[in-house]
Amino acid sequence: MPSQNNPAPNAPERISIIGDGSMATVCALLLESRGFKVTVWGPFADHVAELIQTRENTRYLPGYRLPEAVRLTADDTGAFRDADLVVNAIPTQYIRPVWARLAEHLPDNVPVASVAKGIEQDTMLRPTQIIADVLHKSTDDPDKPARPMASISGPSVASELARCLPATVCAASDDLAFAELLQQTFTTHWFRVYTNKDLLGVELAGATKNVIALAAGILDGLQAGNNAKSALLSRGLAEITRLGVAMGASQETFFGIAGVGDLATTCFSPTGRNRTCGEALGKGKKLAEVLEEIPGVVEGVPTTKAVVTLAEKYRVEMPITAAIHQVLFEGLDPLEAISQLMTRELKPERVG
Amino acid sequence: MPSQNNPAPNAPERISIIGDGSMATVCALLLESRGFKVTVWGPFADHVAELIQTRENTRYLPGYRLPEAVRLTADDTGAFRDADLVVNAIPTQYIRPVWARLAEHLPDNVPVASVAKGIEQDTMLRPTQIIADVLHKSTDDPDKPARPMASISGPSVASELARCLPATVCAASDDLAFAELLQQTFTTHWFRVYTNKDLLGVELAGATKNVIALAAGILDGLQAGNNAKSALLSRGLAEITRLGVAMGASQETFFGIAGVGDLATTCFSPTGRNRTCGEALGKGKKLAEVLEEIPGVVEGVPTTKAVVTLAEKYRVEMPITAAIHQVLFEGLDPLEAISQLMTRELKPERVG
Repeated sequence: MPSQNNPAPNAPERISIIGDGSMATVCALLLESRGFKVTVWGPFADHVAELIQTRENTRYLPGYRLPEAVRLTADDTGAFRDADLVVNAIPTQYIRPVWARLAEHLPDNVPVASVAKGIEQDTMLRPTQIIADVLHKSTDDPDKPARPMASISGPSVASELARCLPATVCAASDDLAFAELLQQTFTTHWFRVYTNKDLLGVELAGATKNVIALAAGILDGLQAGNNAKSALLSRGLAEITRLGVAMGASQETFFGIAGVGDLATTCFSPTGRNRTCGEALGKGKKLAEVLEEIPGVVEGVPTTKAVVTLAEKYRVEMPITAAIHQVLFEGLDPLEAISQLMTRELKPERVG
Repeated sequence: MPSQNNPAPNAPERISIIGDGSMATVCALLLESRGFKVTVWGPFADHVAELIQTRENTRYLPGYRLPEAVRLTADDTGAFRDADLVVNAIPTQYIRPVWARLAEHLPDNVPVASVAKGIEQDTMLRPTQIIADVLHKSTDDPDKPARPMASISGPSVASELARCLPATVCAASDDLAFAELLQQTFTTHWFRVYTNKDLLGVELAGATKNVIALAAGILDGLQAGNNAKSALLSRGLAEITRLGVAMGASQETFFGIAGVGDLATTCFSPTGRNRTCGEALGKGKKLAEVLEEIPGVVEGVPTTKAVVTLAEKYRVEMPITAAIHQVLFEGLDPLEAISQLMTRELKPERVG
């Protein structure tokens, strides 16, 4: 197994990836190239059968061949076979049912890293919290020690990762040794991993940036220009940072790779679902209409509801999020929303 | 004179704009529309004569008519006639000779706001410092009180401002009353002005972001993708923030509109001179060749030299700036520069 630096303690040999989407596929390609024994588990037998037959994820990441060494399965009992590291690549709103299905098969002590971004509707839980919640409920022993959990997050458009274009992410965990293990495990000459102790902040930043991406898309739809979009990025960053800090996250996380870095990609990369959804809204389409056209979950839509609730709970002023909520759910005209934001009371700049 | 809120004390009536480029023209259009009596002074008699004749700045901002109410002049003695506010819109590397020429005509006490971005080569001075330096040298009385000085800075692509597309900027001054006066003076329904007390930080951010924009352009030239560019934005922001904080600026400024906001526009807007210069370098062109093709000063080139000197002086680690310096002046291959940055020692994320 190749390693750039000294191997961390308990370096994994076998890694199970839970999910069959684009990020799951990218993780499989990267980790297999690093010499690990990789299993990819998908929830749908027919899709996994197709993957096994074609060795290509034509639905979510066409154009890349999955090496024979990558084991593909839809068998719940074999999802975690001999795994000493598990990667969750299931989208946030589906984590609970999928992990409830798999929980009984997960061996004790195996650490879990998640690449999902979002906040679960109704519960307001972050991806690693949802998984912990499910696993806790699946055991009879409330005193059982928690296993190490982490989030891997940053500007990571999957189609670029598949081409091995340069990228950086954070591996965030309350357990720094686990974050360092992930750093050693995932780092390649084109993929740079920083460790971060602020799991809360990294997951919150990854979720809340999708609300700002919806707003960025709306500006694109209105052809408002790059000055406006950069102002939005800057003021949007300020308000999601305020929320994060009020919830106990570190301000620095929001100004780092998983914060402003991911936000920039999400606002400016033409392919993202949240930005694309916003652009259609800016052009005058209705939300229901737009959501029907875009396949899969547009995470920013449920997240906007969650963030408005959190902003009230933590008494944080979030004018951009409030305006997006009005556009999405209360019929506010996007142009009117911008006008409202531009003509608020004049004030000193306040960040975080 | 229109005003959205209560007028600040000493609200100006007559405003002189020094410069005849795109930002000078945009300022003239905005301030005239706000009801102020505007003079635009240009250093070249032939260009000003052309402006007077055509009422259009065909060279630097074609397509917009300068109203008859805007007074245009190349006469040094009339540059500041009855002005109670002066706006400097001369590019950084030309501020010293232009202001040396005009200094004797500037009335006492009239405040000066600058929209220039950069650091003067050799002296390492910021735009307002260069002006103060020139004015100080032009008087015999060293105890004369300094006039209020400010910087107006943020994501402000001139061609978008000319179309009255939404934009936000900071008005930064050690003299908060002057910053508030500028806020009242410049704010319109499409142009939102925040006050900021950190003049040092706002000017440093506006200068140093051009180095990161060169790097962003190089990534574009290499077709490295948006993950890489967003990582660069994030890590570039971290290193220019570290320098700013070491020099006494506020970290918050770098995470605000004049920092990350301006940086985002500069890295992602296709039109910027610095990004464009970087893109040509990324495609394999030589610096001398590129600079010949781009009209006007590419501020990021002299600024890279200045920032490397400042980084040494203040002992701040700036790996991206160091790599850009090697590419610009030491013949390092851009692809090799990225490879060096991606394979540095693995470490925790550190911001600011």
